[in-house]
Amino acid sequence: MDDARNGHHMEFEPTVSAVNLYNWYKSWYMQWIMYCALLLYLALVLVEEPAVPGLHVQFYISMVVEVLCLAFFLFRLGHEYWFSSKTRFWRDEKHIVLVVLIFASVLDICIYCALAGFSITSIRVSRPFRPFFLVNIPEGRQMRRAFRNIRRTLPEIFSVLVLFLLIIAVFSLMACKIFGHRGWAKTSGGPYFDNYLDSYWDLYVLVTTANNPDIMMPAYDQNPWLSLFFIIFIIICVYIFMSIFLAVVYNNYRSNLKNEIQEALRRKRKLLKTVFDLMKSKENGKEVIREQDFAKLIQLTLPRKSQQYTKMVWCVLDADNNGYLDQKEFLNVADLLNIPVTEVLPNLFERHVPNIYQSSSSTILKSVVKHKWFRYIFDSIIIINAFFILFDMPDGYEFGFLTVFIIEILLKIYTFGFYMFSRKLWNVFDVIVIGLAFIISIIEVIRGDEFDSRLILDIMLVLRVLRIVKIFHSLGRFRTILNTIMLILPSMLTYAGVLFVFFYFFAVIGLEAFKGSIEFYGPDDNSLEIDQLNCGNINLENSEFARQKYCGNNFNNILRAFVVLFELLVVNQWHVIANGYELAVGSRFTRIYFICFHLLSVIIVLNIFTAFVLEVFIHEYSFTKGRLESSLEVKINEMGLGLGSRPIQNTRHKPDDQSRQSIIEDDQLANDEIDADHDNLQFVCNQLAGLSTRYTDYSADTAVRFHLNKGARNVHTMLEKLFIKELDENDLNDERGNVFLSS
Amino acid sequence: MDDARNGHHMEFEPTVSAVNLYNWYKSWYMQWIMYCALLLYLALVLVEEPAVPGLHVQFYISMVVEVLCLAFFLFRLGHEYWFSSKTRFWRDEKHIVLVVLIFASVLDICIYCALAGFSITSIRVSRPFRPFFLVNIPEGRQMRRAFRNIRRTLPEIFSVLVLFLLIIAVFSLMACKIFGHRGWAKTSGGPYFDNYLDSYWDLYVLVTTANNPDIMMPAYDQNPWLSLFFIIFIIICVYIFMSIFLAVVYNNYRSNLKNEIQEALRRKRKLLKTVFDLMKSKENGKEVIREQDFAKLIQLTLPRKSQQYTKMVWCVLDADNNGYLDQKEFLNVADLLNIPVTEVLPNLFERHVPNIYQSSSSTILKSVVKHKWFRYIFDSIIIINAFFILFDMPDGYEFGFLTVFIIEILLKIYTFGFYMFSRKLWNVFDVIVIGLAFIISIIEVIRGDEFDSRLILDIMLVLRVLRIVKIFHSLGRFRTILNTIMLILPSMLTYAGVLFVFFYFFAVIGLEAFKGSIEFYGPDDNSLEIDQLNCGNINLENSEFARQKYCGNNFNNILRAFVVLFELLVVNQWHVIANGYELAVGSRFTRIYFICFHLLSVIIVLNIFTAFVLEVFIHEYSFTKGRLESSLEVKINEMGLGLGSRPIQNTRHKPDDQSRQSIIEDDQLANDEIDADHDNLQFVCNQLAGLSTRYTDYSADTAVRFHLNKGARNVHTMLEKLFIKELDENDLNDERGNVFLSS
Repeated sequence: MDDARNGHHMEFEPTVSAVNLYNWYKSWYMQWIMYCALLLYLALVLVEEPAVPGLHVQFYISMVVEVLCLAFFLFRLGHEYWFSSKTRFWRDEKHIVLVVLIFASVLDICIYCALAGFSITSIRVSRPFRPFFLVNIPEGRQMRRAFRNIRRTLPEIFSVLVLFLLIIAVFSLMACKIFGHRGWAKTSGGPYFDNYLDSYWDLYVLVTTANNPDIMMPAYDQNPWLSLFFIIFIIICVYIFMSIFLAVVYNNYRSNLKNEIQEALRRKRKLLKTVFDLMKSKENGKEVIREQDFAKLIQLTLPRKSQQYTKMVWCVLDADNNGYLDQKEFLNVADLLNIPVTEVLPNLFERHVPNIYQSSSSTILKSVVKHKWFRYIFDSIIIINAFFILFDMPDGYEFGFLTVFIIEILLKIYTFGFYMFSRKLWNVFDVIVIGLAFIISIIEVIRGDEFDSRLILDIMLVLRVLRIVKIFHSLGRFRTILNTIMLILPSMLTYAGVLFVFFYFFAVIGLEAFKGSIEFYGPDDNSLEIDQLNCGNINLENSEFARQKYCGNNFNNILRAFVVLFELLVVNQWHVIANGYELAVGSRFTRIYFICFHLLSVIIVLNIFTAFVLEVFIHEYSFTKGRLESSLEVKINEMGLGLGSRPIQNTRHKPDDQSRQSIIEDDQLANDEIDADHDNLQFVCNQLAGLSTRYTDYSADTAVRFHLNKGARNVHTMLEKLFIKELDENDLNDERGNVFLSS
Repeated sequence: MDDARNGHHMEFEPTVSAVNLYNWYKSWYMQWIMYCALLLYLALVLVEEPAVPGLHVQFYISMVVEVLCLAFFLFRLGHEYWFSSKTRFWRDEKHIVLVVLIFASVLDICIYCALAGFSITSIRVSRPFRPFFLVNIPEGRQMRRAFRNIRRTLPEIFSVLVLFLLIIAVFSLMACKIFGHRGWAKTSGGPYFDNYLDSYWDLYVLVTTANNPDIMMPAYDQNPWLSLFFIIFIIICVYIFMSIFLAVVYNNYRSNLKNEIQEALRRKRKLLKTVFDLMKSKENGKEVIREQDFAKLIQLTLPRKSQQYTKMVWCVLDADNNGYLDQKEFLNVADLLNIPVTEVLPNLFERHVPNIYQSSSSTILKSVVKHKWFRYIFDSIIIINAFFILFDMPDGYEFGFLTVFIIEILLKIYTFGFYMFSRKLWNVFDVIVIGLAFIISIIEVIRGDEFDSRLILDIMLVLRVLRIVKIFHSLGRFRTILNTIMLILPSMLTYAGVLFVFFYFFAVIGLEAFKGSIEFYGPDDNSLEIDQLNCGNINLENSEFARQKYCGNNFNNILRAFVVLFELLVVNQWHVIANGYELAVGSRFTRIYFICFHLLSVIIVLNIFTAFVLEVFIHEYSFTKGRLESSLEVKINEMGLGLGSRPIQNTRHKPDDQSRQSIIEDDQLANDEIDADHDNLQFVCNQLAGLSTRYTDYSADTAVRFHLNKGARNVHTMLEKLFIKELDENDLNDERGNVFLSS
């Protein structure tokens, strides 16, 4: 039951022994099967009708797999139903959506099979809705939150949108009247604002700036002053309205984020109170938790942590040193357990060949590797390597560089130990890139030169250039920016997920609607060179689409469809693509598809993404500068949605009894190996040095402040090694302070 | 001296009778001459060497005018120097910049003339710097503030920019290696990533998405997986970095705005204190201002206001009714005087033909016009008119509509009086559009059908369609948005000004660099049809630029240059334009011009503009919803920079002794004529109704709250007509409360 407290997940169960069922539901293998089933289910589109070349299978095979997946989803849902309270279960809309989705899919399969029995090929209507499983399973919490955010933003955005479309309508009426029926022609040929609906389309495209000077040129050539119409239109619709869209979305995002975080905090607090009520025992007339109970709890929650860790957590939590935890103290446990604490062990060499490792020559070697000049030298080698790559030096040098880099990696492993070495993402990246390059080089030497391996080798070579970014990272002024990007990346995956859902939805619709209408013949297919000019479709003869050689942008399999949709997302030249499909299919209704995609993906999702980056970046920027303006921002850290928790690890070798001062000194010397950690350490050191000065900045009440100071002292005197905790104690107290203020 | 307090302008003068000089400096005719000289000076570019067709003059004429303008600027500066304190004057950097600009221009003119004496045509170097006069004259306060904002944002943006450019450098190195030297070709022809600098340029253009699918297509056609390179690049550079640029700018904008507002407030307060110190007299041991002194002051500051107004202001200010103003009370005077109060007079008909105007039939007519159905009917007529225009109905109907609209205008003038009628922007717009349409129609009938007047008539016809926007305005949900846009518009002019400075600067450079390199021959110039294909430049033969018929986008006069720069601002297809000039001039260094323009205008100025809209819109949105979260936002209203002061006018007929309740009732009935004012009224009514409930939302201290309540009561009991003032009293007190809190 307790693990629900630490992992943020939430299930309602009556406190019977349905807990076992719940534990089974939550077990890692059930979750794994779930993810595999989901992946399989979504991957079906690769092998279904307009399949990726070489992956095509008969429809009954894919259908059997689909039914199996659906059956598993249903089983999983039933499993959940079993242990949750029945009334609550049906009140949760995600369950209802899941049931509807499953039965609709089954129905769809039955109809399709029945019609196939009569040799009628119908359309599988349920396919575009597949990605919505991703949103509605309990594991898709983040995605659901993002979707909720979108849903809540919709009403506000809707009125702006209607106004926006009406204003385009007014402008296209004006354009029709001013420019139409004068015998002017577009640059690409075709009538110029002769028809109201076409004018509307052209001006809508102009809002995305995709046809910017082109649509203006004929009028401009006739009379330079007519360009004013387009300039005014662009200023109003592009600059003002697009900013307003962003403003509306950003405004909503901020208030939604606040609500979500407050709700999540309240829920967590409620859960922890339940745990406390179950575990409490009376002591001196107060309700408290005893140490042995607590140890058992921690052991159950995190079975892999050592006794020492449990003790440490206890000491930190028991702020007033009375040997018991009261409710207030206990509420911190979840946050405390979420702080990633690495227990530092002696490394492999230290354990197995301590004599050699501790010898004087080895110590010199280690201090050389740790020295900042070691890093400078290898950084410059990377840059030299980049220049060699740029100027296409002979291959012989490549092997030289490879060996140098391999030596660097080995030295680092020797000095810092394998575990510490592997904690750094850059090191892992180095190993993969250089290892792969090494292996491929060897294969190449064995097999001789060949185009394909040559291309891959070049890519590997070039990936190594990415290590230059690592050098940027060590330059102070870029570190904030790069750290922010790193912090944003995991949360960005949520938005990538949301986009994936939309992409999948639109891609499957696109597959059904446009498959085969446009053909692409590979560049080597010389026999069909004439067909290349019309993309295998007579309607596209001489169109802009064919002239720009966009035949590759087709909906003939899901992967290509994704690329097309990405191009539509970037918006440039999308009218050419849209026009191509309009001609290929021969209907203007295709425009609806493209406009819907644009509205949903570009105007809504991308704006939410921008709002997210804006909020996170502003928060992060002021955070690293030491201005902790509002406790909301701190809580973003604590929440999953915003940033994920800030990774703080004490990953360096440090005797336990070393004093803080020396840590700081050492910190400045060992600059070369603490790229990522440096910021955090700096921050923590500031914390320790200026604890009292910082507190005055907070508007928290005195009770909290008192507790904070005590907590800080406790940690410091008891467990030097975990000195980083104050930072998070801060977070945690600040958060608590806020709850006090708001309640 | 006092007018300096109300008009926000600021000059330092010693308190001698140099005040007269200052008054002369500030007098309307001197200001007028100044603006005219400035306009003339900037307009010189129209007639100078690459002149607008038909406006060309000999260079000595323009030069004489230029020297005269410069002389006037110098005189003006000397004038200012005369009355300001000498040391302060030279510490102000705008004066130094002005002096440098003037002398550099004069020097430039001398050199040019001297060289012209030897028949050497040189380049006038000082011309691009002309718009900077606009920024550095004392009147350009807003512009200077925007420039200061940009300057302060630069260091932060600079590090992001460097990182961004470095990352593009890394990617172009990779692109060179992966795609280069493989014999692939671009869609438009030409080598594909063969050269490092070209690759860099292509990827830079890709960041602006201008060449999006095109640059990817050759690689994508060869191997679909290579598209991943471009997708990753776009995600990193376009979506992440562009958002970060916006975030950095937005973050800086907010903090700068805060500082600016606080400083302006402090300055105003200081000035008012000076005035108080000059006017104070001792009374009961306290330093106060007597009523007759105050009346004199108001009479001097606003000579056009009535005695009644002065009395009213006095009553409002004298919150504790003791017959004197102490310093605290006096500090409100500037804000109070800035509230636009219209004194309602009986209208023309009421004054001259009261019998007829008050007769029963006239009253019925007036109530008909005031009725909401009157508006509904005319709104639907506008829509019907739009449909008629859309479906090209015969001209006869047009005259019908025109007469109907003229009748509507006359009726409204009759009912509301001319003065009230003209206070509404929509009414003025109606009169202009319909009046012009009427006049042009008559001219057309007299002169017979002709193309030019036909086009103008069509434009007038179509401008009338814009009245549909007026209908949108009366729909509740669009009102907030449209009101915000209206509020933003005046402040947007500042940014338009900033853009104008950059445009002018770049346009003049463009004129010097590219004039004559690309020629455009009008569409009727059939004799030169062949030249049209290469824009009169052999280098452009068969280029993308000529093929897209962009010959009109040239730098042959300043107006065309502005259009080209606007196209570059919109960013789409800018690489085609840049490429055109590169080919036409035959040098790759032209790219520097285009990249500089993009960085300055798009990345910096446009982002600041977006930040501005974001901030104002979010503020405005929460303001109209009654959530007044921080007093900063209120102060934006009060400041010139943010929004301009919120126009609150009691522009409706209302007997003085009418009670508040009936005002509110009436307000709901007379819905048809208070489009713009409705929001404000609603807000004010809320203010009055829920004064006490709102105050609890403020965190101001009790002293302020007490004062507020008193002020509100005072206004209410004394002067019914000015009941709107509470709102602004609120603003003003809130602002004061904040000063208390911050000091």
